Amino acid sequence: MAPIWHGKKMAETQKTILIINPNSNQAVTDGISNAVDAFRLSGGPKIECMTLAEGPFGVESQADVDSVALPLSRVVTERDDVDAFVIACYSDPGIHACREATDKPVFGIQESAMLAAASLGDRFGVLAIADASIKRHLRYLRQLGLIERLANERPINLSVAETAGGDATFDRLEEVGALLRDQDRADVVVLGCAGMARYRKRLQDSLGLPVVDPCQAAATLALGAVLLNG
Amino acid sequence: MAPIWHGKKMAETQKTILIINPNSNQAVTDGISNAVDAFRLSGGPKIECMTLAEGPFGVESQADVDSVALPLSRVVTERDDVDAFVIACYSDPGIHACREATDKPVFGIQESAMLAAASLGDRFGVLAIADASIKRHLRYLRQLGLIERLANERPINLSVAETAGGDATFDRLEEVGALLRDQDRADVVVLGCAGMARYRKRLQDSLGLPVVDPCQAAATLALGAVLLNG
Amino acid sequence: MAPIWHGKKMAETQKTILIINPNSNQAVTDGISNAVDAFRLSGGPKIECMTLAEGPFGVESQADVDSVALPLSRVVTERDDVDAFVIACYSDPGIHACREATDKPVFGIQESAMLAAASLGDRFGVLAIADASIKRHLRYLRQLGLIERLANERPINLSVAETAGGDATFDRLEEVGALLRDQDRADVVVLGCAGMARYRKRLQDSLGLPVVDPCQAAATLALGAVLLNG
Amino acid sequence: MAPIWHGKKMAETQKTILIINPNSNQAVTDGISNAVDAFRLSGGPKIECMTLAEGPFGVESQADVDSVALPLSRVVTERDDVDAFVIACYSDPGIHACREATDKPVFGIQESAMLAAASLGDRFGVLAIADASIKRHLRYLRQLGLIERLANERPINLSVAETAGGDATFDRLEEVGALLRDQDRADVVVLGCAGMARYRKRLQDSLGLPVVDPCQAAATLALGAVLLNG
Amino acid sequence: MAPIWHGKKMAETQKTILIINPNSNQAVTDGISNAVDAFRLSGGPKIECMTLAEGPFGVESQADVDSVALPLSRVVTERDDVDAFVIACYSDPGIHACREATDKPVFGIQESAMLAAASLGDRFGVLAIADASIKRHLRYLRQLGLIERLANERPINLSVAETAGGDATFDRLEEVGALLRDQDRADVVVLGCAGMARYRKRLQDSLGLPVVDPCQAAATLALGAVLLNG
Amino acid sequence: MAPIWHGKKMAETQKTILIINPNSNQAVTDGISNAVDAFRLSGGPKIECMTLAEGPFGVESQADVDSVALPLSRVVTERDDVDAFVIACYSDPGIHACREATDKPVFGIQESAMLAAASLGDRFGVLAIADASIKRHLRYLRQLGLIERLANERPINLSVAETAGGDATFDRLEEVGALLRDQDRADVVVLGCAGMARYRKRLQDSLGLPVVDPCQAAATLALGAVLLNG
Repeated sequence: MAPIWHGKKMAETQKTILIINPNSNQAVTDGISNAVDAFRLSGGPKIECMTLAEGPFGVESQADVDSVALPLSRVVTERDDVDAFVIACYSDPGIHACREATDKPVFGIQESAMLAAASLGDRFGVLAIADASIKRHLRYLRQLGLIERLANERPINLSVAETAGGDATFDRLEEVGALLRDQDRADVVVLGCAGMARYRKRLQDSLGLPVVDPCQAAATLALGAVLLNG
Repeated sequence: MAPIWHGKKMAETQKTILIINPNSNQAVTDGISNAVDAFRLSGGPKIECMTLAEGPFGVESQADVDSVALPLSRVVTERDDVDAFVIACYSDPGIHACREATDKPVFGIQESAMLAAASLGDRFGVLAIADASIKRHLRYLRQLGLIERLANERPINLSVAETAGGDATFDRLEEVGALLRDQDRADVVVLGCAGMARYRKRLQDSLGLPVVDPCQAAATLALGAVLLNG
Repeated sequence: MAPIWHGKKMAETQKTILIINPNSNQAVTDGISNAVDAFRLSGGPKIECMTLAEGPFGVESQADVDSVALPLSRVVTERDDVDAFVIACYSDPGIHACREATDKPVFGIQESAMLAAASLGDRFGVLAIADASIKRHLRYLRQLGLIERLANERPINLSVAETAGGDATFDRLEEVGALLRDQDRADVVVLGCAGMARYRKRLQDSLGLPVVDPCQAAATLALGAVLLNG
Repeated sequence: MAPIWHGKKMAETQKTILIINPNSNQAVTDGISNAVDAFRLSGGPKIECMTLAEGPFGVESQADVDSVALPLSRVVTERDDVDAFVIACYSDPGIHACREATDKPVFGIQESAMLAAASLGDRFGVLAIADASIKRHLRYLRQLGLIERLANERPINLSVAETAGGDATFDRLEEVGALLRDQDRADVVVLGCAGMARYRKRLQDSLGLPVVDPCQAAATLALGAVLLNG
Repeated sequence: MAPIWHGKKMAETQKTILIINPNSNQAVTDGISNAVDAFRLSGGPKIECMTLAEGPFGVESQADVDSVALPLSRVVTERDDVDAFVIACYSDPGIHACREATDKPVFGIQESAMLAAASLGDRFGVLAIADASIKRHLRYLRQLGLIERLANERPINLSVAETAGGDATFDRLEEVGALLRDQDRADVVVLGCAGMARYRKRLQDSLGLPVVDPCQAAATLALGAVLLNG
Repeated sequence: MAPIWHGKKMAETQKTILIINPNSNQAVTDGISNAVDAFRLSGGPKIECMTLAEGPFGVESQADVDSVALPLSRVVTERDDVDAFVIACYSDPGIHACREATDKPVFGIQESAMLAAASLGDRFGVLAIADASIKRHLRYLRQLGLIERLANERPINLSVAETAGGDATFDRLEEVGALLRDQDRADVVVLGCAGMARYRKRLQDSLGLPVVDPCQAAATLALGAVLLNG
């Protein structure tokens, strides 16, 4: 029964990375899953993306951020089949509660994006969705002790109407990204949101600078951790 | 009906500071109320201390911290009769959610203690209850951008048995405070906990350095804000 | 003789905050006294404002700053009836000499304003009277270890003619304050001068951000210190 | 001839990570290759480890570091079949020259280790081989803008005789690692050398803290970069 | 034979500062020699300027920088008649290798210029030859721990045609220097290149700010070191 | 009358550095003059050392520091025959007032010592005369933006009796200097006082590290400035 035994062993030993989208928008989760598809390798860990049922439809305010901390740490506690966790919201909600809840590695996507950016350039620029989140991000960057590496963070501030209009989002990313590059001297650019991975490669080619998607950055660190410690 | 009208007006216009103890231990709330009694002045704002019913009995873990963020912001939203809020737990739980929930000033006691200490000395030492909280405090101090002013933070690490033994807590505060003063060159000492105000004056006299109680530090800032903007 | 004794005891035990205007312009002292009037509470400490006879008519240069250090420390030494001192010039002249001269707390208004601002927002903008003082302020902010919290400092650079023209000063504060808010991402604004308290509330309402008057910020800290240690 | 074509396509499209050991000690290269073996996944990039023929037998001095910069950048230029490079010496020799020589990502193992450590703990401790290298590392950490996250760096300073003695190296890593954890408050430990990966897991279990091997940290970042941009 | 002996003793005891131009352009070396001519005093050390034969014609890239590290350290090792060395390229190539190679002081001109500027003003502005070098300079300034003193670095970005046109270089230095002074609040300006000393005095007079030539700054430190330790 | 005219011209054009000892102890001035004797070169500027008549016998307190600021700036204003000034007290009293009073360069000895140390090593240790001054020095070092380069500052705390006892001062400098080197990882040591130059060379030889005398460091910078701008 070698095949069966082998099959069971395979099933038992395949490691799992769980990426949790803290908002309850399944379309965002699907986008994240697409973004990390390149990391699903035969012989590598399974990468599962889940939508947090308790999450708000979007995590926009600090209250939204705080509302998901305990639900996230509960998932982390309950899923003992998982080998590494990713919190896939750019505010890194509940990151410290989750790390307290488990000895397994937990990665926040903002933190991971900053660290990845620091390996790809000297000064990073960040493209924020909206002005309102920048204050929160700067505060967090001070906490990370990485503020000296920030070139600038600029908002794209798209209205819903603009977002709807086909390439409007990309055009705006390109326009603001060029300001980060030319006026702020960023030599690497970070997408400051969990849902823009589909623009990453195109923006990278257009700007001529490395562009970091935060979910991919966190998936990279999770992959490394799981391969080593799983 | 001048006296009555005048009396009503007085009642209507007296400002209110609400100090919220995020844990559900009424004895702690009572201690905080005692600690800020000196700030209750005729002609000044009312200072009300409340116990957060939803809070854990003690706020010790990050999960505890995160668990009170939304309950605190709900209180802040609901109590529109209040002119300034104080979150009376040294981890400053929910501080950003509360600030988002209201335009009125919200003070955290750790933040306030650091700022008060910075006005009373050049380098502050912090007396933490336990080793485990120091990591959280250092991270927060980096976020505040005040890390250059920290001399050191040292734990008193008292066992329950030791705490029970009469002056054991004070003796330990004195002993560790002397290390902050003599080995770390602190010239002001912060009590890193909401419940040690009763030792403040005595420790100050013993160490020969200003000692800051965090609830009193926050009450000071709240008093100033209310007197100016109430 | 209980009433008499009681009366004397009252007189003896009322605490005193002394705010020293280091320039010899009595009109400035009067403005400061008005600015802190809200802190004069029945049951609270007496707040006395004095003009430093030896001071220059205005403290504008470093020589002016240095010229008042020893006169200020003499006042601090001589006034042993005082429980807390405020040096009411934005350059915080003689602050270290005064602190050396007494064990009582001494507050500088720039330092106090920075600390108050740090409790009301994440990044503070400063409105300086003139370009020439900004270099001195930045140097001092580095000394305070608070430079990471500075959004920017901008001068209003009003000519005498402009100042004379009614609302010109307020208009300029509003205009430059809006730049601090919109271009520099300040979320709290500091009036970088001892004599602009009368514009504070109006500017705060106009900008939609907390505005800090430095004399009021120092009076707040002094009030707290006196109530606790007096 | 589909299979042949398919086979060629496979060969053509498999991505390659090249890890260059800048010293000429093949045993070190072999150890590095073992250290990153977990990253060799079916469907993933090929991970090739090469010994730099021009390198010194060990990179110990600054002259050693500088001597390999141009040979390394020549390899980077010549190997246009490679998708990402790792410089596998803890001094990150030639890192900027290599980055200048190619648009492909180049990772240094010290830089990568610091960034990985920052994702696994709040303050990292570093275990250096010898006292002499610490000065160089601290200088580099300032350059990286990460000095606020350093708990301490301590040397193990093993003599040759001690190294020879079986478990002496591990015992010393354990002993000095415990100092980093207990005296310096490190909550993650970095092996400050390319050749100690075999102790990582055991040290991690013994200290109860995450332990980072720098080659594995760089391989992780390289793997992520190749999977995304290859 | 007193005169002869005396003469020999004089010859033997005159100290020597060796300024090494790491590029092989003799005209640059001649310009440096002119720049430091004011430091050649009777009774003072001999100041010798040499062209590094192995150097590239200009040091423009990181590869150029790295290519001269070992040749420079060889010079430092071989010239045991020298009492202090200056590496006269603004990238401070090989500075750490040279310091390792000798116990005599070795000064880099960028480092020296930053330190001199810090003694002449509060915030320094730097005039870079080209945009491409600014990233390298900022990285180095972080390494030096001096980034808080930087007002800004701006490129003059002159084309060859412009450089050829008589006063074009000076005009551009003046124009960009004025931006450093007026927009960035620099109160001292550094010439970010080894070959612009001839504009220093004129630019200083025009801008009304101290202007630092890096070769002269390093020669100053070398002169001091030799007079004291020679 | 060419020779006479030439002689007069010589006299007229010889530049002058004025080193002002802000205390009124002529023996200290004499020691400083000895310390900088190596900088008196034929063909170089005259170096004059003066005792400030208005100064206290020793500058020990902040009041002492502040008391000499205006007398120093008066000297700077009056001595228009001087080309560069040095304030020869380790607290750099009056440095900003003096800089305001003249366009000529003014060097403080603490500032100069820090900058010189930064050119001779990576992390500097400071030998303070007494514990009490360290707080003032650390505050100043933060102002200078150089705190990242400080290894530690340690007091020698010699009693008068010990100082009297022959080699006691040197022995103590050696003992505390060794702690700076071995425990704090300083690779350059600064004498934190104007009056210890006579121990510099001997201490340097004993510790095997560069040792910086602050008066000599400032004289170096003054010499450079005068030779260039005189």
